[in-house]
Amino acid sequence: MSHRVYNFGAGPAMLPLPVMERIRDEFLDYHGMGASVIEISHRSKEFQAIQDEAKALLRELAGIPDDYRILFVHGGARMQFAALPLNLAGRSTTKRCLYAETGNFSQLAIKDAQPFADVKVIVSGADSGFRRVPVLDPATIDPSAAYLHLTSNNTVCGTRWQSFPETGGVPLIADQTSEILSRVIDYRKFGVVYAGLQKNLGPSGMAVVIIRQDLLGQAAPHTPLLLNYTQLDKDDSLTNTTNTFAVYVVKCMLEWLKEQGGVAAMERRNEEKAAVLYRALDGSGFYRGFADPSCRSIMNVTFHLPTPELEKQFVKEALAAGLYALEGHRAVGGLRASIYNPMPLAGVEALARFMDEFEQTHG
Amino acid sequence: MSHRVYNFGAGPAMLPLPVMERIRDEFLDYHGMGASVIEISHRSKEFQAIQDEAKALLRELAGIPDDYRILFVHGGARMQFAALPLNLAGRSTTKRCLYAETGNFSQLAIKDAQPFADVKVIVSGADSGFRRVPVLDPATIDPSAAYLHLTSNNTVCGTRWQSFPETGGVPLIADQTSEILSRVIDYRKFGVVYAGLQKNLGPSGMAVVIIRQDLLGQAAPHTPLLLNYTQLDKDDSLTNTTNTFAVYVVKCMLEWLKEQGGVAAMERRNEEKAAVLYRALDGSGFYRGFADPSCRSIMNVTFHLPTPELEKQFVKEALAAGLYALEGHRAVGGLRASIYNPMPLAGVEALARFMDEFEQTHG
Repeated sequence: MSHRVYNFGAGPAMLPLPVMERIRDEFLDYHGMGASVIEISHRSKEFQAIQDEAKALLRELAGIPDDYRILFVHGGARMQFAALPLNLAGRSTTKRCLYAETGNFSQLAIKDAQPFADVKVIVSGADSGFRRVPVLDPATIDPSAAYLHLTSNNTVCGTRWQSFPETGGVPLIADQTSEILSRVIDYRKFGVVYAGLQKNLGPSGMAVVIIRQDLLGQAAPHTPLLLNYTQLDKDDSLTNTTNTFAVYVVKCMLEWLKEQGGVAAMERRNEEKAAVLYRALDGSGFYRGFADPSCRSIMNVTFHLPTPELEKQFVKEALAAGLYALEGHRAVGGLRASIYNPMPLAGVEALARFMDEFEQTHG
Repeated sequence: MSHRVYNFGAGPAMLPLPVMERIRDEFLDYHGMGASVIEISHRSKEFQAIQDEAKALLRELAGIPDDYRILFVHGGARMQFAALPLNLAGRSTTKRCLYAETGNFSQLAIKDAQPFADVKVIVSGADSGFRRVPVLDPATIDPSAAYLHLTSNNTVCGTRWQSFPETGGVPLIADQTSEILSRVIDYRKFGVVYAGLQKNLGPSGMAVVIIRQDLLGQAAPHTPLLLNYTQLDKDDSLTNTTNTFAVYVVKCMLEWLKEQGGVAAMERRNEEKAAVLYRALDGSGFYRGFADPSCRSIMNVTFHLPTPELEKQFVKEALAAGLYALEGHRAVGGLRASIYNPMPLAGVEALARFMDEFEQTHG
C-alpha cells in the first residue's frame, strides 16, 4: 500500500486512487500488447479505440449535443487563449471580441487575445477584488461581436458564475478548466467550452475543446496549423502525434466518473464537500472566507487566517497531518483547498477537523 | 514479470524497461511525497528540481554550449514547424527562409511555415524518391536569409544527413526528432536544434528546443504566447502549466542514457545495431533496402519484400514472434524497423534471425 496524502493542490491535481492504480498496473503492458500505452502509435487501432471511447464517454457524461465537436488539443487551456481569437475573431468584421474579467485566468485570456482581436472587456469584478463575479448587463453585449468569453470557475479567487448570461446570437465561450464535469451545464448555451485536463480530467499539457460545428471554418490565415480547430476536427485531433498518455488517462477518468454515477451525482457530492468547508469558515471568527458567499466556487475554497505567519504555520502543520498543498495562489495569498471531483468527502472532513484543531491551538 | 515485445514502432516508441519499471514503481508516490509526479504543481520545488536536472543532463550528455538555451515546448516537433518562422523569419527583411526537402516531415515543415515566411526550397531529394539526401551547394544559400532548415534524420524513408552543410552566417536549424542523442553532433554548427520527445526522449506531446541565445528576441507580434521562444526562455518553459509527466520521463531517460555511457557509447551501439540489419538486407536477394547505402539512417531501417502480400505476411508472422510494429509508413509502404536508443541489440538480432527464417520459408 502506497503512502498517499490528501492533495488539495490546484493543478496538476490529485486523481482518484483506483484510476492511478489502474494506470500503474497496466503501465508496462497495455491489454496484452506487450507494450505500454505510451509506447504505441497514435495511429494504431488500439489508440484510436482509446480516443473514440474517451470522446463517446465525454459526450455521454457531459450531455454534449450531436452538433458539437470534441477536440483534444496541445498546450492546455492557455494555448486556447490565442487559438480562440485566431479561430473565431473573423466572425466579426472588426474582429471585436468581448471578455468578462473575473480574476487571474480571465485576465490572461484577455492579454493573450490582444494580438489577434479587437478585445473589449464588457464587465469586471476588479472593484470587488474579484471576490464577486459581476452581474453582466445583456445590453452591453455588442450583437456584432465574434464572441463573449468568460471563465466559468475562477481557480485563484474561488468564485464561479452561478448561472450564465443570455447572449442572443453572440456565441458564449467558457473556460471551464477548473470545473468541467463537476456540475451539470447546458451546452446549448455555449458556442465553445474548453478546459485544461489537469484538474478534473487528467494530467497536464493538453486541453479538450467542445465546439459547435457551425463555428468551424473561420480561422485566420495566420493560424498555426495545430491551433486550427477546423484542421484538428478534420483530422480527429490527430493532425500530428497527440499526447497519447493524456488521452488515455482521460478515458480512465471518464470511466471512473461513470462508475461514480455521472455528473449530476458528482455535483451533489461536490456541493456536499464544499458545504463542509464553507460551514467551517462561516462558523468561525478565526478563518475568513475570501469569495463573496453569493459567488462561491464548489471546486476552490479560498480563505485567510488572522496573520500571514499563522497561514504559514497552518500550511506546515497541515502537511505534517497529511493534508498537502494548501497554500493560496501567489496572486491573492492566504489558503486554498482545491476539491475537484477526485477529492473524496473523507479528505474534506479531515481538513475540517484539522481546521478546528488548529483554531483551538492557535486561535 | 510483464509480457514485453520488441517494439519497432516509429513513435511513440519503446522506452527502456528499467525506465518504464521505475516510472511504474514510483507512480503513486513520488519520493515519499504521498502524491504522484503527475499530481504535483509545476511550480513546486520538487517539479522544478526535475526540470533543472533534465536540462542539466541534456546539456551535459549532448554537449550543448553555455550560450544555447533549452526549452520544453508544447505540441511536439510539428508545432515548431510554425513556431520557427514566427520566431525567426523576422531576421530577414523579406522573411526569406530556406528549406531542404528530404522526405515527409521536411515537406510538412515547409508547408506549415508558408503562412509566416517567404519559403524557398533550395535543395530536394525528390528526384531520387527521397532514397538519397541531396548534396547541398553552399552557393545556393542566400546570405540574407533568416535561416536554413533541414531534417537531420528522415524517419519515413530511413535516410539521414551524414554530415551537415556549412552555412556561413545563416543559422542552420535541424529537426532532430528521430535521432536526438543517438549520434554525437557539434551544436556549434546549429542555430536551433529541436526534437519531439517520442522517439529517444520520452512520451508524445512535447518537444525540446535548443536555441542559440542571440536568436531570441525576434518573434513576430502575432506569435501566440506559448509559441514565443523568448517568452518561454524568460519563464524557464513554465509560462503555463507544462506537461509535467513528459519532463519527468525525459529526466529518467537521460539518467538511463548516462548510465549507458552517454551519447558516444550509444552511437557506437546504434551503429552496431543498424549494421546487423543492413547486413541482413545486403546479403539477401529477397529483401531490398529502400535508402541509398550512402544515406542510410542508423535509427530507421526501411526495406521491401518481393510483393505487398509477402510484406503483410511478414508483419503478421513477426508480431506472432514478438516483433511488433514493423509496417512501413503509409507514404512509402514496405517495412520499417525503428531502432532508437532504447532498442537493445538483442531485439535487432531477434529481428535478423526472423528475417532469415522468413526468407527460408517464403523466399
